[in-house]
Amino acid sequence: MTDTAEFPPDDEHEHPTGQTGWLSPEEIAAVRAQLPLVYVDAVPVRVDDSGDVVSVGLLLRASPLGSMTRALVTGRVLYHERVRDALLRHIEKDLGPVALPQVPASPQPFTVAEYFPTPGITPFHDPRQHAISLAYVVPVNGDCRPQQNALDLAWLTPEEVCSDTVQAEMVNGQGALVRQAMAYVGRLD
Amino acid sequence: MTDTAEFPPDDEHEHPTGQTGWLSPEEIAAVRAQLPLVYVDAVPVRVDDSGDVVSVGLLLRASPLGSMTRALVTGRVLYHERVRDALLRHIEKDLGPVALPQVPASPQPFTVAEYFPTPGITPFHDPRQHAISLAYVVPVNGDCRPQQNALDLAWLTPEEVCSDTVQAEMVNGQGALVRQAMAYVGRLD
Amino acid sequence: MTDTAEFPPDDEHEHPTGQTGWLSPEEIAAVRAQLPLVYVDAVPVRVDDSGDVVSVGLLLRASPLGSMTRALVTGRVLYHERVRDALLRHIEKDLGPVALPQVPASPQPFTVAEYFPTPGITPFHDPRQHAISLAYVVPVNGDCRPQQNALDLAWLTPEEVCSDTVQAEMVNGQGALVRQAMAYVGRLD
Amino acid sequence: MTDTAEFPPDDEHEHPTGQTGWLSPEEIAAVRAQLPLVYVDAVPVRVDDSGDVVSVGLLLRASPLGSMTRALVTGRVLYHERVRDALLRHIEKDLGPVALPQVPASPQPFTVAEYFPTPGITPFHDPRQHAISLAYVVPVNGDCRPQQNALDLAWLTPEEVCSDTVQAEMVNGQGALVRQAMAYVGRLD
Repeated sequence: MTDTAEFPPDDEHEHPTGQTGWLSPEEIAAVRAQLPLVYVDAVPVRVDDSGDVVSVGLLLRASPLGSMTRALVTGRVLYHERVRDALLRHIEKDLGPVALPQVPASPQPFTVAEYFPTPGITPFHDPRQHAISLAYVVPVNGDCRPQQNALDLAWLTPEEVCSDTVQAEMVNGQGALVRQAMAYVGRLD
Repeated sequence: MTDTAEFPPDDEHEHPTGQTGWLSPEEIAAVRAQLPLVYVDAVPVRVDDSGDVVSVGLLLRASPLGSMTRALVTGRVLYHERVRDALLRHIEKDLGPVALPQVPASPQPFTVAEYFPTPGITPFHDPRQHAISLAYVVPVNGDCRPQQNALDLAWLTPEEVCSDTVQAEMVNGQGALVRQAMAYVGRLD
Repeated sequence: MTDTAEFPPDDEHEHPTGQTGWLSPEEIAAVRAQLPLVYVDAVPVRVDDSGDVVSVGLLLRASPLGSMTRALVTGRVLYHERVRDALLRHIEKDLGPVALPQVPASPQPFTVAEYFPTPGITPFHDPRQHAISLAYVVPVNGDCRPQQNALDLAWLTPEEVCSDTVQAEMVNGQGALVRQAMAYVGRLD
Repeated sequence: MTDTAEFPPDDEHEHPTGQTGWLSPEEIAAVRAQLPLVYVDAVPVRVDDSGDVVSVGLLLRASPLGSMTRALVTGRVLYHERVRDALLRHIEKDLGPVALPQVPASPQPFTVAEYFPTPGITPFHDPRQHAISLAYVVPVNGDCRPQQNALDLAWLTPEEVCSDTVQAEMVNGQGALVRQAMAYVGRLD
C-alpha cells in the first residue's frame, strides 16, 4: 500500500466506465470503515530467456514524514474493471506507458495479501483501511521509468530485495510480500 | 452468487467486530454501484484417504421465480474479517456447525472469479453488483446439513457436477466455477 | 505424450552435458519398466495485451496407424537439465527457433499429469511408460512453425479446443489436460 | 533429500506392484547417473481450526558423519505409484501409521524443487543424483512419532523454522524449501 492518497484520483480521473456520481468524501470515509477494498499488488521483475527472475523493480518514494521507502506497484481495482486491467493500469501508472508488462495468463495470484488497519493480524498493514490484495509477479520487458510521486525505480537482485537493508526500507508488510514472491519464483535467498 | 439478499443480514447480525452504524440501505445501493465487493466461493468436497475428491456438495435453492438451482457456498468477506474466517463462517452458515471444514493452509485461491453486473465480460455474472470472489476447494469431514434458505444438499460425483444436466441447474457462472475446481483437483470429466 | 519414439534421439543428440555412455536399448527398456520418468507438457498460447488467452496452439501429427491426432508440446526432462530449460528445448523442437516463448517465472506447474501405462488410474495414459509430467501454460509471441514430425500447427480458440470435435482428436488424456489449462487461465468453455 | 540410502529398501520391500526383477546395483548406479528421478517433499504442519499453520514438523537425523540435521519428509515416487500415494507412504514411513495426513486435493505442488548433483544451479542439492521433487504442505491431525532412522520429530513454529539456528541445521536446500512453504501458507517470518 502506498502512503499517498490513491483513492480519489483513481475515481475522478480514471473511472473506466466514465460514471459520474461517485461517493462523496464522507461516503468514502464511511466505506473505508465498513468494507474491505480490493487491491492488486504487482511485483515487477526482469527475467532471462528461460524465464528465471534476474531482478526486481522497487519504487523509491518519500513518505509524508520525509523518510525514504521502497514499494511495489499497488492500487485499487475499480468498479467494473477486470483484475488484469487493474494490473495493467497500475503498472502503467507507476512504470510508464512502455513497460510492456506480461500480465499472467491465469487469474490465480501467488498469494492474497490481507492488509488490516490493525497491525499484527497478518504480516500486512494499512492504517487507512482493510484492503484485500491479489498479488502477482509481472515480468516487464520494456523501458520503465518512475512516474509522478516516485523518486526512482531500482532494479535489485532477488538476493538484494531479501536483504535486511532493503527489507528495512519497505513498509506495511511489503517486505514480506516481495519475499513471498521470491519464494514463488524459486529465488528466495 | 446466491439469489438471496445476503448483504444486510451479514452486516446486521454477523458483523465480527460488533460495530454499529453500518451503511443505510441507500448507502449500500450506492456502494454496490461504485465498488467491487470481496467474496469467497467454497467448493465443498468429500475426499478419500489419499486426498482424492470423490464427491462435491451442491446446495439446492429455490430462485425468486420458483425454479430450482444448484449453488456453491458463497458470501461476502466482511470488514476486518480474514478470508479464512469468511470461508469458515459461510460454510457453517450453509452446511451447519459440524461440517468440520479443512480450510486450506494457503491463502492462494485456485482461481479468482470476477462476477460482473454485465454478462459476457467473464464467465461469471451477478446482476446485483461487481463481486471479486476468491475460490477455494474445501474438504469437509463432518455431518453437513442444509441451512435456512437451502432446500437440500446433494453430494454428486465429479462426473455428475460436470454433466450437462447439473450444469444447466447452476446459474451466474457457478457451473463453470465448479468445473474449474474439478480441473484443479485433477477430476475434470 | 507423443506417439513418436522421443527417447533415444533426445539422449543421443541433445544430451546437455555431452556425456557418453548412455544406457543401451535394453537398459532403456528396463528403466521404462521400473521408474517413472519426468516429462513436461507445454500448452502454447497466444495472449492479448492484458494477458488473456486468445488461442491455443495444437500440433497435428499422424499416428503410426495413419490417423490424425492433435497434440501439445511434450517431452522428457534430461539428466542435469532444469525444468525451464526442458520446456524451452521442447518448445523450440516443436514450434521452431523463433517462437519466443515466455516460460513462466515460477516453477509451480498448473497441474501434474500422471501418465500411467495402465488406463483408468488417472485421466492420462501412456502405453510405453509411467511418465509424471509438469504442465505449464506458455505464451509464445514469435513466429511458430511445425517442425519435423508434425504436419501442422493450428491456433484454435479456447472454445474450439474444448469442443467435442477437437477433444476427439486428442489422445492419452491430452484433451483433459488442455481443458485443465483453459480452466487455469479462466477460459474453460 | 535424506542422507540415508533410501533407494534399495523402497524397491525391495515396498514395490507397490510386487514386481521382481528390479535393476541391479550397477544398473541403479547407471540410472542415477543418467536420469532425473521423481521425488516428493512433504512439509508436515499442524493447523488451527481456520487452517492457519501453527507449527511445522521437522525430523531430527544423524548424518553419516555424526552431525545432527533437521529434515522434511521426502522420498521417491515408485513405478506405477500415484504422487498422492507416494506422499502418504513416505509420511507413514517417517511419521508413523496414525499421523492422519490430509493430502491436498489438488496435484498442484506449491513448488518443484530441483535437486542437482552439482551445487549452485538451484538452491537444492543432492550429491547422489538429479532429483525433481514435487513439494506439498500436508496438515497432519493425528499422533506422529519418528520412525526408524529419525531420532526425533520436533514441532516448531513458522518463525522458528525460518530462524538462522534451525536453517543452519537443514541441508541440501531444505531450509530454503521450508521457507518457501511458509511463504506459500502466508507465514514467512
